[in-house]
Amino acid sequence: MADQWSRWGLDLHLQSQAGRGLRAGIEYALREAVRSGRLPAGTRLPSSRTLAGDLGVARGTVTQALEQLVAEGYLESRPRSGIRVAPQPAAPPPTITPPPQATLPPLRGVDLRSGFPDLAAFPRRAWLAATRHVMQTAPNTALGYRDRAGAAELRHALAEYLGRARGVVTTPDHIVICAGYAHALRLVSQMFGHRGAIAFEDPAEPGYPRLAVHLGHEARRIPVDRDGLLVEALSDEAAAVVTPAHQYPLGVTLSPARRVELVSWARRTGGFIVEDDYDGEFRYDRQPVGALQGMAPDRVVYAGTTSKTIAPGLRLAWLVLPGSLLTPLWEATRWEESCVNVIDQLVLAHLIENGELDRHVRRCRTRYRRRRDLLGQAVTRRLPQARLSGVAAGLHAVLRLPGTAAQERALLDRLAARDIHVEGISSFYHRPEESPLALLIGYATPADHAYGNALSALVEELAIVVA
Amino acid sequence: MADQWSRWGLDLHLQSQAGRGLRAGIEYALREAVRSGRLPAGTRLPSSRTLAGDLGVARGTVTQALEQLVAEGYLESRPRSGIRVAPQPAAPPPTITPPPQATLPPLRGVDLRSGFPDLAAFPRRAWLAATRHVMQTAPNTALGYRDRAGAAELRHALAEYLGRARGVVTTPDHIVICAGYAHALRLVSQMFGHRGAIAFEDPAEPGYPRLAVHLGHEARRIPVDRDGLLVEALSDEAAAVVTPAHQYPLGVTLSPARRVELVSWARRTGGFIVEDDYDGEFRYDRQPVGALQGMAPDRVVYAGTTSKTIAPGLRLAWLVLPGSLLTPLWEATRWEESCVNVIDQLVLAHLIENGELDRHVRRCRTRYRRRRDLLGQAVTRRLPQARLSGVAAGLHAVLRLPGTAAQERALLDRLAARDIHVEGISSFYHRPEESPLALLIGYATPADHAYGNALSALVEELAIVVA
Repeated sequence: MADQWSRWGLDLHLQSQAGRGLRAGIEYALREAVRSGRLPAGTRLPSSRTLAGDLGVARGTVTQALEQLVAEGYLESRPRSGIRVAPQPAAPPPTITPPPQATLPPLRGVDLRSGFPDLAAFPRRAWLAATRHVMQTAPNTALGYRDRAGAAELRHALAEYLGRARGVVTTPDHIVICAGYAHALRLVSQMFGHRGAIAFEDPAEPGYPRLAVHLGHEARRIPVDRDGLLVEALSDEAAAVVTPAHQYPLGVTLSPARRVELVSWARRTGGFIVEDDYDGEFRYDRQPVGALQGMAPDRVVYAGTTSKTIAPGLRLAWLVLPGSLLTPLWEATRWEESCVNVIDQLVLAHLIENGELDRHVRRCRTRYRRRRDLLGQAVTRRLPQARLSGVAAGLHAVLRLPGTAAQERALLDRLAARDIHVEGISSFYHRPEESPLALLIGYATPADHAYGNALSALVEELAIVVA
Repeated sequence: MADQWSRWGLDLHLQSQAGRGLRAGIEYALREAVRSGRLPAGTRLPSSRTLAGDLGVARGTVTQALEQLVAEGYLESRPRSGIRVAPQPAAPPPTITPPPQATLPPLRGVDLRSGFPDLAAFPRRAWLAATRHVMQTAPNTALGYRDRAGAAELRHALAEYLGRARGVVTTPDHIVICAGYAHALRLVSQMFGHRGAIAFEDPAEPGYPRLAVHLGHEARRIPVDRDGLLVEALSDEAAAVVTPAHQYPLGVTLSPARRVELVSWARRTGGFIVEDDYDGEFRYDRQPVGALQGMAPDRVVYAGTTSKTIAPGLRLAWLVLPGSLLTPLWEATRWEESCVNVIDQLVLAHLIENGELDRHVRRCRTRYRRRRDLLGQAVTRRLPQARLSGVAAGLHAVLRLPGTAAQERALLDRLAARDIHVEGISSFYHRPEESPLALLIGYATPADHAYGNALSALVEELAIVVA
């Protein structure tokens, strides 16, 4: 085939597109020529007979290609004037603006940032086996399933699992499957936002109150002390978002007295509690403190996720709602659709029902407890000036250092220069300058074989700094 | 083990919870007794020694259980007064309100509702094989991946696929992975809503303009004629959402002249076009009309999905954005996180790269074309009074019947009484009473073996009605 369309002074480099044949090649070449301006608007094309001859292809192929391009608006066909290039307002080339990363890219070196489980422990074989089970057993209708609350199989499995593992009192009808905790929090914010302010802990993951504000709602910050949320600082908020099992980031547990106080606040004011139970499965020195939800299923919206038990990349979470909030939730999120792949929901349901999730969590708990113990020993031995807290549960601890928040940036930079990546705690505070000088140590993040070295690198470097 | 705690007049039915042992059983029984009110607030518990004796378990087991319940707020421990039941504001039992179904439940009988592909054709083996590939090859860091734009692997695969299959002109940096089209439309609405009104076609899927209104934005309805959107009815809208390849629900194709007009409108007013290319892969009598986006990558937001090519249950979609809209999108959706499981993204990327998606679409196209032909033949033979349109592409056609919209309800009821489920077209119109009398025939929905019977049942029943 000729690759140049030279009779009328234009080179059209034709490429036969794999599997699409000559016609597609002609269309592609013409489209590109029009788009790029090499064929300006108004250019009259030779007859299809001439083109076919030039190109050495059947006339019908050329005719079909030209018709296609007329249909797409690149060419126009007028009676008696043949085919011309249609007017194409010159499109500036799209500017390349890389989207912001929501999280830092994977790091080399020592990564002890919080928020990640050990991704090397991802149960790949179990996930694949459960996918096989779902592909072999799910009815066809399941794959069209778009129930906004989520797949019934997963809601049933979760009702049983959350009751057994977390003391949550509920039924499948009260469970809504979400695409990660941020999605769950968005739904919750949309539901509560028009009723009044939403209270968040201070310190807390800063993106969460900001999300509420971004959605147009009022976010208030309530201080946290060693007993958890300072409940007495709540007033007329529509909802209070708390992390009772292991406060994020401080790691403290909401005390029994505060739990009762918080439920009383909700009962008294008509407010609701949003219990973010992000790492409730991981408690090391005794069995997990049961979910606050169990004390007051009518006042607590319980939120859980697989982000810490399995992996954040799954984007799987759930809300357990009081019956009185089901209709308000559906009203507030009307016309939205489910955001969660039904296959993933059925896979997770199977992992819960066949005990794989329990086994995985147990294995991880043993591993993380050992890492926590190693962290404690290393701090005791090499950093007597520091104080480790928040170690009873979860995937991270807080290492308080002598000094003030003003020194944090320099400290983190110094560590980063040694390729040791941890977070300071100040950015979690509403007023970062009032933060203590402390590091958040995500001890679950490294792969198991890398943990010992990561820990040594961190502690040895800090020993030099604080000496 | 004794199963009654009778010494102090209370039956505690203890059940050893599988894998949790005696302590968990004691905790469970006590929790339930407190929750149910059988143990009222203030009740003083016997000493741990007494309880242990009664229950025939080690004293340490009882002590640990009581400590746990104190931590959870069910009991309180005061110096010199022992352990008492803590105040528990009586929680009314949660009311059971089943959530609304977003779609009708799977039907028996004849299901010719539009919007579904043949779910029996779901590529189960290919999906499983791709999952195996991902589980064997994805680096651990991928599983923690939370890039809001989506996995780079999928964005690269889509840039190539959309260019080849749909004539979309883009780069991976301009693609954002979404959890279904409704999610994509929410992101788009949040981005455009504050700039001005958003135009939707009339008729259109009614949930989409309602979603925009629900988010607080202005939605305008623009009429559609046989050439597609009546572009001259647009004015100063910030964006116009259109279905150029196969208008939903009417099935018409946006004409070449209107494509040029629409792009000119966007260029002239600064508005943007949102191209909902929901079934663009399916065109039967010639190759697909290339995406409008290819004519004006700087003015068109292109949206695609796997809902029609594979299955709606996957909740996978994508936006291709002009470079000038990337920053506005990230600003408008700030603090939100990705909603799409990274494993699914890598699975889809693999299915695109190894050609499985193309093969699947080709198989489905052949099948659907045959079904469409059978539908056309049946209508010609048995319903000469009716007119079938929108058959050039997609998964549905429109069957215009003699009569008015006022007769639609009775017609649908009559069909439903024979277990034949189709949709009328009136609910897609902004003013349903101005709709013609027409049915939407989703000819892809039944499984292949069921299609012949479904078609006969529909046509025979209609033949009686319109006779």
